[in-house]
Amino acid sequence: MDKSQVLIEALPYIQDHHNKIIVVKYGGAAMKTPELMTAVMNDVVLLNLVGIKVVLVHGGGPEIDEYAEKLGLGKVKINGFRYTDEDIEDLVQMTLCGKINKNLVAALTRAGGKALGFSGLDAGIIKAVELKTDNVDYGGYVGDVTGVNAKPITDALENGYIPVISSVALGVDREVSYNINADVAAEKLAVALKAKRLILMTDVRGILRDQNNNSSLIRFADRSEVPLLIADGVISGGMIPKIRCALEAVSGGVQSATILNGQVPHSILIELLSKDGEGTMIC
Amino acid sequence: MDKSQVLIEALPYIQDHHNKIIVVKYGGAAMKTPELMTAVMNDVVLLNLVGIKVVLVHGGGPEIDEYAEKLGLGKVKINGFRYTDEDIEDLVQMTLCGKINKNLVAALTRAGGKALGFSGLDAGIIKAVELKTDNVDYGGYVGDVTGVNAKPITDALENGYIPVISSVALGVDREVSYNINADVAAEKLAVALKAKRLILMTDVRGILRDQNNNSSLIRFADRSEVPLLIADGVISGGMIPKIRCALEAVSGGVQSATILNGQVPHSILIELLSKDGEGTMIC
Amino acid sequence: MDKSQVLIEALPYIQDHHNKIIVVKYGGAAMKTPELMTAVMNDVVLLNLVGIKVVLVHGGGPEIDEYAEKLGLGKVKINGFRYTDEDIEDLVQMTLCGKINKNLVAALTRAGGKALGFSGLDAGIIKAVELKTDNVDYGGYVGDVTGVNAKPITDALENGYIPVISSVALGVDREVSYNINADVAAEKLAVALKAKRLILMTDVRGILRDQNNNSSLIRFADRSEVPLLIADGVISGGMIPKIRCALEAVSGGVQSATILNGQVPHSILIELLSKDGEGTMIC
Amino acid sequence: MDKSQVLIEALPYIQDHHNKIIVVKYGGAAMKTPELMTAVMNDVVLLNLVGIKVVLVHGGGPEIDEYAEKLGLGKVKINGFRYTDEDIEDLVQMTLCGKINKNLVAALTRAGGKALGFSGLDAGIIKAVELKTDNVDYGGYVGDVTGVNAKPITDALENGYIPVISSVALGVDREVSYNINADVAAEKLAVALKAKRLILMTDVRGILRDQNNNSSLIRFADRSEVPLLIADGVISGGMIPKIRCALEAVSGGVQSATILNGQVPHSILIELLSKDGEGTMIC
Amino acid sequence: MDKSQVLIEALPYIQDHHNKIIVVKYGGAAMKTPELMTAVMNDVVLLNLVGIKVVLVHGGGPEIDEYAEKLGLGKVKINGFRYTDEDIEDLVQMTLCGKINKNLVAALTRAGGKALGFSGLDAGIIKAVELKTDNVDYGGYVGDVTGVNAKPITDALENGYIPVISSVALGVDREVSYNINADVAAEKLAVALKAKRLILMTDVRGILRDQNNNSSLIRFADRSEVPLLIADGVISGGMIPKIRCALEAVSGGVQSATILNGQVPHSILIELLSKDGEGTMIC
Amino acid sequence: MDKSQVLIEALPYIQDHHNKIIVVKYGGAAMKTPELMTAVMNDVVLLNLVGIKVVLVHGGGPEIDEYAEKLGLGKVKINGFRYTDEDIEDLVQMTLCGKINKNLVAALTRAGGKALGFSGLDAGIIKAVELKTDNVDYGGYVGDVTGVNAKPITDALENGYIPVISSVALGVDREVSYNINADVAAEKLAVALKAKRLILMTDVRGILRDQNNNSSLIRFADRSEVPLLIADGVISGGMIPKIRCALEAVSGGVQSATILNGQVPHSILIELLSKDGEGTMIC
Repeated sequence: MDKSQVLIEALPYIQDHHNKIIVVKYGGAAMKTPELMTAVMNDVVLLNLVGIKVVLVHGGGPEIDEYAEKLGLGKVKINGFRYTDEDIEDLVQMTLCGKINKNLVAALTRAGGKALGFSGLDAGIIKAVELKTDNVDYGGYVGDVTGVNAKPITDALENGYIPVISSVALGVDREVSYNINADVAAEKLAVALKAKRLILMTDVRGILRDQNNNSSLIRFADRSEVPLLIADGVISGGMIPKIRCALEAVSGGVQSATILNGQVPHSILIELLSKDGEGTMIC
Repeated sequence: MDKSQVLIEALPYIQDHHNKIIVVKYGGAAMKTPELMTAVMNDVVLLNLVGIKVVLVHGGGPEIDEYAEKLGLGKVKINGFRYTDEDIEDLVQMTLCGKINKNLVAALTRAGGKALGFSGLDAGIIKAVELKTDNVDYGGYVGDVTGVNAKPITDALENGYIPVISSVALGVDREVSYNINADVAAEKLAVALKAKRLILMTDVRGILRDQNNNSSLIRFADRSEVPLLIADGVISGGMIPKIRCALEAVSGGVQSATILNGQVPHSILIELLSKDGEGTMIC
Repeated sequence: MDKSQVLIEALPYIQDHHNKIIVVKYGGAAMKTPELMTAVMNDVVLLNLVGIKVVLVHGGGPEIDEYAEKLGLGKVKINGFRYTDEDIEDLVQMTLCGKINKNLVAALTRAGGKALGFSGLDAGIIKAVELKTDNVDYGGYVGDVTGVNAKPITDALENGYIPVISSVALGVDREVSYNINADVAAEKLAVALKAKRLILMTDVRGILRDQNNNSSLIRFADRSEVPLLIADGVISGGMIPKIRCALEAVSGGVQSATILNGQVPHSILIELLSKDGEGTMIC
Repeated sequence: MDKSQVLIEALPYIQDHHNKIIVVKYGGAAMKTPELMTAVMNDVVLLNLVGIKVVLVHGGGPEIDEYAEKLGLGKVKINGFRYTDEDIEDLVQMTLCGKINKNLVAALTRAGGKALGFSGLDAGIIKAVELKTDNVDYGGYVGDVTGVNAKPITDALENGYIPVISSVALGVDREVSYNINADVAAEKLAVALKAKRLILMTDVRGILRDQNNNSSLIRFADRSEVPLLIADGVISGGMIPKIRCALEAVSGGVQSATILNGQVPHSILIELLSKDGEGTMIC
Repeated sequence: MDKSQVLIEALPYIQDHHNKIIVVKYGGAAMKTPELMTAVMNDVVLLNLVGIKVVLVHGGGPEIDEYAEKLGLGKVKINGFRYTDEDIEDLVQMTLCGKINKNLVAALTRAGGKALGFSGLDAGIIKAVELKTDNVDYGGYVGDVTGVNAKPITDALENGYIPVISSVALGVDREVSYNINADVAAEKLAVALKAKRLILMTDVRGILRDQNNNSSLIRFADRSEVPLLIADGVISGGMIPKIRCALEAVSGGVQSATILNGQVPHSILIELLSKDGEGTMIC
Repeated sequence: MDKSQVLIEALPYIQDHHNKIIVVKYGGAAMKTPELMTAVMNDVVLLNLVGIKVVLVHGGGPEIDEYAEKLGLGKVKINGFRYTDEDIEDLVQMTLCGKINKNLVAALTRAGGKALGFSGLDAGIIKAVELKTDNVDYGGYVGDVTGVNAKPITDALENGYIPVISSVALGVDREVSYNINADVAAEKLAVALKAKRLILMTDVRGILRDQNNNSSLIRFADRSEVPLLIADGVISGGMIPKIRCALEAVSGGVQSATILNGQVPHSILIELLSKDGEGTMIC
């Protein structure tokens, strides 16, 4: 009987994750279509149903781009960061905290969950100062995270809510809000929440030993192997900052950090409740 | 993806049964071989892992027969009850409470569960008087259940234990122990524990509309349909007292009572955690 | 000694309001300048310090207007409601939940409070259907409140947070968000939270018997007097819907509802902690 | 607006003192007239209303004198202590525990407080041995405090009562009660209760740099400055033992000890709830 | 074995009285000598040790008389009450609350108990108005009990203390204290505390059918029999008001009220922990 | 008055043992007749009534012998252990866990107690491996205790039950149950439960300095004296392993271990609740 085998495999995972915190950076491909978004939100509600404490952290580049264009604000990338001046930050805050965050909590609520939206501004959940690099002008509103207040998130989890957090931070050097990277926000929160796992949903399968060969996926990597993989060029480009987040999380006490392909339907369920799994897990 | 579909189907059942009490009468075919016994105990431990409160109630005819023969004590059935005099009751108590009960708790403990064995004699969990029918001599030690003290079972459940209960009762008319039917014990306990479900594991598939046709299984029956099914002869013989227990449980507030074939591997997992199911459920 | 007299007067009020919920609709004049906004937020933090559970509800017309203009979206009022189509609602949600709400929680946090922002979309705090009036087209996104889930707010209060709530509702007839009136949202929340008091901060002093005579303020009015005051024209124009909110709150169990002039500095402190008071209180 | 400024100043003090223990030695001038006594008791009830845990400790020389005269018992002072033989101690105990203590709890109860009277004899709250100094005869019933059992006081505070304590101690060297100094009793209790503040109400304004110049009051003194002030004669006479109590309290962990003029109406309210203050605070 | 029989008899009584409240009016003969007082206090501590919640209520005529004489105050009895003017009440309060109460708590503390002294003035434990009878002048300070606040006593019991209560009441018609009868105080407290038993320690054995025959003691009397016993003159004189207290207690829900001879050593232990007993029990 | 003296002596013992755990190895003489068994069970219920947490551990040689004979199984003793092969272990388990244990819990329940029966197999309360001694064949089913899980016993005690434990252990080297010595089981449980006292009920009075002189009983022995007593032959034969259990218990933190003569009626009451005592106490 197939069904019983799936259950026999899954039940110890459910028990193992019961009451544990899993921080999921949600974005990229898994956010692109309403169908995929609804599917992921349904999976999150199911995991929450059986006592797994999922914390969602999100960014939202494409939606910001859309409004920026309408308002005649440009899109400039510097060192991987969006150039952010006062007007852009105002828009970033409105889009992340007002549009995407609330659409996510509404979707989770409709799927039967109890979701609450937060941002780094609420009760100082994420604190930052202006990011400063020699000779670089980021516009004055890109933030460098300096602290996390996890208490409102654990309070919400204890009361059974699914927290959804926008990657906007409270300025502690100036009375402004800062635009921050969502992967970094997820990593900092995972460490502060003493999460069991960090999952970075992205558009690719993980680390491939040979970029042209899908079956060369590295399923597990010890954190000590990472520097060599970077030196060898196996990890390169946009994957490097993601892997850095994964490493920081694991160094900070999170048991493992996984780069997961959000385009595979229900990849989060399979990752958490079976011995299979897509993507690369750093321990 | 098949695996995710099984999980998507199962997770709401897990949530639905979370912290609910399920009384399982364990016996007959599912008890015959050590392999099947181990498989059922493993399933019970898995269910307990995800927060489902399984209470096992057992009898044990075959083991009693074995020792009765060694000791030269006979086996006589009267109106479906074993003739039980003082010597036989002594043996019944020893076999149920000393041999089978302790083997079950040892098996559950070895499978990773925390199991505690009880009998109706412990703290008066099951109280009985002598069963008396005109002109019938049952030997003086067959009991008629008059009361249940569910407190020790709920105390054990609250502390996370899997209770395993032998169907022997404390005499309240005389200072003796009584031999009682395990199906009846399970039903009385299910009602007293305000259980969500009663599952009677047996050797047959449930109620067949046509005894010669396995595919004529009646999957669900409302309690109001039962009298007609008896009148029509669809329910007959040894199935009648089992169905009576099911009816009494449902009348007493248990949501449903299921006749389940214990010979089908993992039938209890499938019954509780999927929309499929073997056997007949009375609501 | 003057100071001691103020204290002797205030301490019983502090005791009387201790652990009581006060819902404050914040908007209008008290929101216009950053200085006044900071002053009100400081007062809220002080009240929270001594155990008074203030819940802020806000709208935000002017900020919406500003972006609407930038985006080329019009501003049309129908029956006192802003005409709201899909694009405008998108902007309303972004502005209220993303801009104003987060600016308020940031200001409260900077003043030393612990503030969390919510909207009606979070965990279904405010539920609505489309407002429908014969022959009127509101654009499809003006909502009529049908239910309130106060649990997330009481959870936040129990953990010591100051909840700040945007007047946007979760559609229960369609999968959309609705634009709702902030006075109505405040009233519905006050009733659901079993608040002690509802305070509607506005730009005027309250009900004047003679509009041209500031000293003709009606300080207290029993709810039974209101119909006559409307009939006599003493209450008229934009004051009528505000007074209706006050009446509904009082009928729903709130002890009193006050129309308060937000332009008077610290009017909320004086109103709650002294026997003086600006504005009109309906009991 | 004056009133709001007083409140804005007071609210942080209320928060700061919330649930903190303040031990007040009550006596001297503030006890002389029924009007002043009623005023102080009202202030204590107000402070208690907003969650400040006031503990009153009292002596009562004048009332003892009055009965001593009626009974023909003398009043002799030796080294600042009243000569106390068995008859005088009987009278001291009756007057402090029976008359003054009960009049104070009755006054607090009438002012709306919940007050309970204790003495050092109750549950061994204050334990003492006979005070012995070479060549001095104190009469055998003056005590030297050796221990404090603060548990009954904290139990009473947890249940919301205002404890009022007579300065009489349980003999642990002989089965008698001892007459002890009320300032000392207050200091020992403040230390044992881990009080935030000790306030010694007295008849003078505090330490004056120039006894003839009221405006030469030393408002704050660090404990390290005290020996010099004594050496310089600024602190002298009856003020010395009071200041010693203050020092011992501060050394024992109490944050500050204040010499307060009980004749100034509501001086205790002003001292605790504003930045003003009469008298001298030792930190 | 004798000893085991005493224990077998006593243990169920200990269990039966465990955590139950027993109000004991202590006075008269059992208070006369320091030896008897010490013996009774030791018994109370022993009972408290095994979880029986004894509440002591005391009066103290002889000690009042002694000081009254020294002060030249008379002793006049009217209708069984001491004539009490302001000076006498002052003395009554000092003697009961200051001398006797504190001596009792000191004795209990020395015997190893944790005792707290209270009076009717503390937190309004006993409230009264002036007793008024036509044409009778009681001096203005004899009280008629109008209410009881049992909360401070139950708070003390919950924290393991032995409460000792002086029979002085808080005036609610005038701002004075009132002299009240200790038997009445004990009865009112027993009812308010929902005590299991009331024990009135006195100098006589109880109700004798024949005053000259000690063996004619009536051991148990149903409350319905009392009027006849009064009519027959079996109950007469000073016993009548005591029996009235007993009757009121039993009518008020106390299980039984016993007149006990305090002169018999350890009579309270025997009464509570064995089937024997001196005195008369009214049920 | 004799009775009061017994009580005055007993009450401090009751207090001293209140909520303390006393492990009693019950067997031998005190188990021989139904009358003596009933008397001991009544004493246990009485002790439990007053809050003393008695844990009973039992063996049951004679009953095993009886069935062994009926079944044609021999009785061979090797080094003080019963030779135990698979068939004998099956019978040992049935007799101890099924017959004696359940008869004891039934007797305790009938005496008014709440008793629950356990064995070492339940939740792994007692774990063992096969006892192996060079050149000795114990039959393969005699166990050597390797661990104790006291949690189920403390859970039962916290809920007010009297636990009764059969000396059968869960095999951790093979999937079998093991026959273990009841004195050893009691000692291991006493240590794991941090019991106050261990009482080994046996047939003799304790250690006699002169075996022929009953009055030469050694009432108290410090553990340091034991080796000398063994060397001198004062402790010899079957007493040696009992004394070893006592020593191990005391070394493991149990305050004292007593060898008690179970044939003396109510010896356990006298031992625990008076200063008298039969038998020898090792401290």
